[in-house]
Order: sequence, then structure tokens, then C-alpha cells
Amino acid sequence: MEERVQISILLDLYGDLLTDKQRSIMDLYFNDDLSLAEISEHTNTSRQAIFDLIKRCQKQLIEYENKLRLMEKNSQSESYKEIILNNIELLKAKVDNECLSFVEEIKRLVLEL
Amino acid sequence: MEERVQISILLDLYGDLLTDKQRSIMDLYFNDDLSLAEISEHTNTSRQAIFDLIKRCQKQLIEYENKLRLMEKNSQSESYKEIILNNIELLKAKVDNECLSFVEEIKRLVLEL
Repeated sequence: MEERVQISILLDLYGDLLTDKQRSIMDLYFNDDLSLAEISEHTNTSRQAIFDLIKRCQKQLIEYENKLRLMEKNSQSESYKEIILNNIELLKAKVDNECLSFVEEIKRLVLEL
Repeated sequence: MEERVQISILLDLYGDLLTDKQRSIMDLYFNDDLSLAEISEHTNTSRQAIFDLIKRCQKQLIEYENKLRLMEKNSQSESYKEIILNNIELLKAKVDNECLSFVEEIKRLVLEL
């Protein structure tokens, strides 16, 4: 996975563990795609301080993932859900109307997981 | 939910974010059900220091839950899974052998989620 995409996912999973200021600057850089110079101007902070903060937070987010593994677990769950949904579609084509309502309910709930 | 049970679940979810020493003492108190006096003797640390550490870690675990809400999300997922599995059992009683293999595969994967 591209590092930028990975950090953006980790930010979504663990961003609430950062301070508001850290979270906001990480959002500007990784989600809004602003440059260091733009963030520096926008926040009235030196380019070097922004660079250091981003590097520090990146390291922190990776440490959270190494400990809690939420990205890894989510990715595995999504793979399972995809196979479940494929099986549900195959099943829908084969069952009668009475069974179809159970299958539709299962599908609805799997999508909520 | 009883506080002791709640802390034990939070310890399972967020314990890796504590230090090894904190994790170990929290385990002795909440999972192995040792008293403060027993942990104090076991770790060669004052009873007051153990008490303070436990209170501090409890607060920390609750803060993690307030930010990441893993316990809340897990509990909701478990409720959904229970209804899915009930629907699967109802469906199993109604479908023919060909469909049954799809239903069994769906059940197997839901249990992996």
C-alpha cells in the first residue's frame, strides 16, 4: 500500500488519540493534500516545525497500529465480508421467495458490520 | 455492565497501549483477582503505589474507549452477528442441499468476523 494512503487510513483509525492541533495538521497534509509551505502559512508555524510534527505523528500512528492492529483486522474483515456478499448473491438466485427475505435480511445486517 | 467486567474488557482491547508493568499489574488485579496487598507483596511495591497505578490506568483505559469506542463498536457487531446467525439457522431449515452449502459457507465466514 502507498505510504500516503496507509497514513490516511491510520489517521482515520487512530487520529482521535492525537491532539487537536496534531490531528488538524495531519488532515491538512494527508487528506487535503496541502504542501508543507501552505500548512506553514495557514497555521503561522515554521515549515520545519510542521515537518517535525508530521514525522512524529506518522511514527506515533504506526506505533498504535503495531500495538492494536485495527487496520490489519479491518482489512481482513472486509475480505471476509466480500466473500460473504458474493455467496449471498449466488444464494439469492437460487432460493424461493420465502427464503429470499431471510437472505435479504442477512445481507442488510452484514453490510452494517 | 459491572465496572470490574468493563475494565477487564477495556484491558483486553487497549492493554497493549499500557507499559508492560502497568499491563501486568492490571492483569493481576482485574483478571487474576489478586488483592492490592497480594500484588504489593508479589511486585515488591507499596500498596499505595499499586492503588495509584490501578486508578491511573483505569482512567487511561476509559479515555481510550471514549476516543476510539472499540468496546461499543464490538458490542454492536456482536449483536448484529447474533441476529445474522439466527437468520442463518432459520434459512438452513428451509433450503435444499445445493443452497445449504452456500448457507454453511456464509455461517463459517460470519463466525470469522
